[in-house]
Amino acid sequence: MATSSPTRPSRLLPLSLGLFQGSLLLFFAFFVTYNEPSAQAEDANLVANQLYGIFPIFQDIQVMVVVGLGLLLAFLPRYGLSALTHNFLLLNFSTQWAVVLQGLIHHFHHGQVHLDLRNLLTAEFAAVTVVISVGAVLGRTSLCQLLVVAACEVPVYLASEWAIVTHLGVLDVGGTITIHVFSCYFGLGMSKALFGAAQRPLHPKETPTPSSDLLSLVGMLILWVFWPSFGAILCQPGHVQHRAILNTLLAMSSSAVTTVVASSLLERDGKLNLSHLQNGSLAGGVAIGAVADMAVPPVAALALGNLSAVTCVLGFRFLTPLLARKLRLQDQCGIHNLHGLPGILGAAASAVAILVTSEDTSRS
Amino acid sequence: MATSSPTRPSRLLPLSLGLFQGSLLLFFAFFVTYNEPSAQAEDANLVANQLYGIFPIFQDIQVMVVVGLGLLLAFLPRYGLSALTHNFLLLNFSTQWAVVLQGLIHHFHHGQVHLDLRNLLTAEFAAVTVVISVGAVLGRTSLCQLLVVAACEVPVYLASEWAIVTHLGVLDVGGTITIHVFSCYFGLGMSKALFGAAQRPLHPKETPTPSSDLLSLVGMLILWVFWPSFGAILCQPGHVQHRAILNTLLAMSSSAVTTVVASSLLERDGKLNLSHLQNGSLAGGVAIGAVADMAVPPVAALALGNLSAVTCVLGFRFLTPLLARKLRLQDQCGIHNLHGLPGILGAAASAVAILVTSEDTSRS
Amino acid sequence: MATSSPTRPSRLLPLSLGLFQGSLLLFFAFFVTYNEPSAQAEDANLVANQLYGIFPIFQDIQVMVVVGLGLLLAFLPRYGLSALTHNFLLLNFSTQWAVVLQGLIHHFHHGQVHLDLRNLLTAEFAAVTVVISVGAVLGRTSLCQLLVVAACEVPVYLASEWAIVTHLGVLDVGGTITIHVFSCYFGLGMSKALFGAAQRPLHPKETPTPSSDLLSLVGMLILWVFWPSFGAILCQPGHVQHRAILNTLLAMSSSAVTTVVASSLLERDGKLNLSHLQNGSLAGGVAIGAVADMAVPPVAALALGNLSAVTCVLGFRFLTPLLARKLRLQDQCGIHNLHGLPGILGAAASAVAILVTSEDTSRS
Repeated sequence: MATSSPTRPSRLLPLSLGLFQGSLLLFFAFFVTYNEPSAQAEDANLVANQLYGIFPIFQDIQVMVVVGLGLLLAFLPRYGLSALTHNFLLLNFSTQWAVVLQGLIHHFHHGQVHLDLRNLLTAEFAAVTVVISVGAVLGRTSLCQLLVVAACEVPVYLASEWAIVTHLGVLDVGGTITIHVFSCYFGLGMSKALFGAAQRPLHPKETPTPSSDLLSLVGMLILWVFWPSFGAILCQPGHVQHRAILNTLLAMSSSAVTTVVASSLLERDGKLNLSHLQNGSLAGGVAIGAVADMAVPPVAALALGNLSAVTCVLGFRFLTPLLARKLRLQDQCGIHNLHGLPGILGAAASAVAILVTSEDTSRS
Repeated sequence: MATSSPTRPSRLLPLSLGLFQGSLLLFFAFFVTYNEPSAQAEDANLVANQLYGIFPIFQDIQVMVVVGLGLLLAFLPRYGLSALTHNFLLLNFSTQWAVVLQGLIHHFHHGQVHLDLRNLLTAEFAAVTVVISVGAVLGRTSLCQLLVVAACEVPVYLASEWAIVTHLGVLDVGGTITIHVFSCYFGLGMSKALFGAAQRPLHPKETPTPSSDLLSLVGMLILWVFWPSFGAILCQPGHVQHRAILNTLLAMSSSAVTTVVASSLLERDGKLNLSHLQNGSLAGGVAIGAVADMAVPPVAALALGNLSAVTCVLGFRFLTPLLARKLRLQDQCGIHNLHGLPGILGAAASAVAILVTSEDTSRS
Repeated sequence: MATSSPTRPSRLLPLSLGLFQGSLLLFFAFFVTYNEPSAQAEDANLVANQLYGIFPIFQDIQVMVVVGLGLLLAFLPRYGLSALTHNFLLLNFSTQWAVVLQGLIHHFHHGQVHLDLRNLLTAEFAAVTVVISVGAVLGRTSLCQLLVVAACEVPVYLASEWAIVTHLGVLDVGGTITIHVFSCYFGLGMSKALFGAAQRPLHPKETPTPSSDLLSLVGMLILWVFWPSFGAILCQPGHVQHRAILNTLLAMSSSAVTTVVASSLLERDGKLNLSHLQNGSLAGGVAIGAVADMAVPPVAALALGNLSAVTCVLGFRFLTPLLARKLRLQDQCGIHNLHGLPGILGAAASAVAILVTSEDTSRS
């Protein structure tokens, strides 16, 4: 009995995951079918062209979330393997869970859930919110705890996305509000709930080394490179998509350079702080998402990139220590600085853009 | 004389490779031309669209085999550099050799071999069988030995592919049988031939460290992400290709989660074994290849992913030690568990799928 | 005062970069707009198809220059982080600077600079010359110095590109002359100017370790895989682009294998030198750029790959030590062997190709 007791928790994870896989099989067997053309008369060329338009961009996003995000989280030495593994498994579990829930909500026609690449993509967006949120408690939670978080967060995300996009009619092509702001505050709430009372000693595993920082930097670069795909994939094809790509490229570029300016000026030794660079360079991408496809002038994208990088660096320098001291809020990866603040900035920019540009030209 | 003798073997490799490059030049000079339109009247838009359809997917596959597979094999510490280098050079040599042989067999019209991107792709598939096979003897063979293996394996692969696809009419869009099963048993046979009699002491270079495991994990993630491209590239464009992508995505996702279940239940300490994850997550992709483009329901793809992951983990846990003990069969990377068993599973699934679905709907 | 003095230089970088960002904002606010269709009547399908043709290839090139080139330069232990960071920031700064200058020169119609993805791409090509050039002084210069170099090199590149392409009418689709040869000799001149008089002691940071070599090797593999995209992106769509891809693939493949031959024969211990492999495998890509889209036979691409790899290895073995001894010329990354010599070879091949093939068929 003394020996079986410590092994019991370790069986909990595989058994519950196995049960989930079994239920998933049953759900798929009874309810899920592919979204295929009912008539063979449909133009095969059209289907092929649509696929050529979406598939390479879909693969870019897969690289971002599976490889890029995993490596970005690998900045804690000796926790790199777990960061990659947990990120990978959470993504898979959450995507499956979101396919089920989204299927039940959106795609239930004639008693069947119709699956296509676009459904899988939106399910993956739900999974992205989970892996962003768990950044707040990186290195302090087991895979089992993280899966419980994922199981709770996916339905809340879907409800919030429905409220924001369908109910309020907010335009948010890059997921600035629905993905980034939501997942940030969900993650911070979870962190407070799990570790709010605990003192936070600085564990040696939590100080990045040059080699763990390098992994994280490579992860950032992968995310940085493919971010325009993330902003563009749900856009209307044609010149709206082209504009979303250009806006994202400009915002990412200006936030990368501005991070150096802000970080060097704020750090006492005048040196660039690597964690600022790892996050600030991506802040422009978070902020631009809400306005990427709008008819904003290029200077707006550039300015939003500048502002979001400054906000992100200021957040790391002043707000994170403040929140940790006052609210005992632990934010291991600084998700509030990368996803929360720039996301709010992007939401504000989107409101301004809609007020300034006239209704009929804003998305044409 | 005493000093020249040890250097002679080291000159054998460059001289024979140089001779091969010279012969390749001659062959190309006399026989190879590009597969270009005879008349300028051909629609340039059509050619451009075909290229846009295949080229991004081709690049995905290049990333898989050059970067992903190389890193996956880098799990032996201090052998990482050799694994990447050998993988890269074997791929190049085998592709060139396959272009020559395939050209002689298939593309010889009017006295000329006509080369296009599709020929290079099928030649690369031949090279993939080589790099899979040498996984069985990873870290115990010199580049020179490996090139001899490649020189032998490519013609055997082409003969077997011809027998399976052209002669028997087997449909195998993802190369489950022609690539994975073939290369696994070729590799095991080679391993038996080379090291069958030798005892196998556990060399310290053969115990993965966290940093070598991390490289291998990144390699797995790259392969995992781009696997749908591998299954889709040879499909008929349009909704058949769309279905192949969806089936592959579902199978990869379910095998990733199932690997955690199976590995945690089978390991005595209840912990996820990293080498199980590195291989089991890909097992679904191996198995689904044979049925990816068929009109199977989504649940079948999911179930095949589950089954292949369980088979792969069981293979690592029980079959590999058994084969090593009984048959003195060395399988350094566990290619039997990743390519052999899931490949057989996929072949069986493909037979079942053909029996169940009626002939006229199976590939429409 | 004693304490403020050493911090002053460290403020120079952020303040001047900040000033540059501010000026960029002003320039964009007054002069830059997106290159959008004046009439809504334009076929949205056409725009979408053009985007699908260029965007995945553009992303490939982004991966090359941001991730691949950064990792390739990370071969100095303890300098890996700086190599990646400097590469990333130089690329961003130089692209922004090139957008401004190119906008002023080329795209100034009706008082506005019209920005599209193609402009950003050509601006990025200007940035690539900067990051190639600074390879000559890798690890010996601060970010501040490098930004000054970038500020000077971009206008010189644009002038030289105008002179070569527009004035002389040289066809150079892969940038062999305009990018590679130019950046090599600019970089060597800069190295001579900065460190010409200094003795060069071998710093321990300058001896690659297995793990830094592995990063560099991964960087090379990424560059190698995506090089065909670099050669193809500016080609005429259709079979000219197809041919450019095939020529580049053949040249890269033959230079990879030939590097092993040349390096093993030239090294005294008969072993493959890793820095030869890291550079020689890419030499074929540098050389083929100038002729990739011409109607050359496949054997010419193969032969050019062979020749450029041999030239590159000979350069490392004999020319670099000679230049260092005679001219005190420091070339840390061997850019003369990777970009200079193969570039000249490619330029010569392009001259030969134009002489041999008749005018009217060379680019059809």
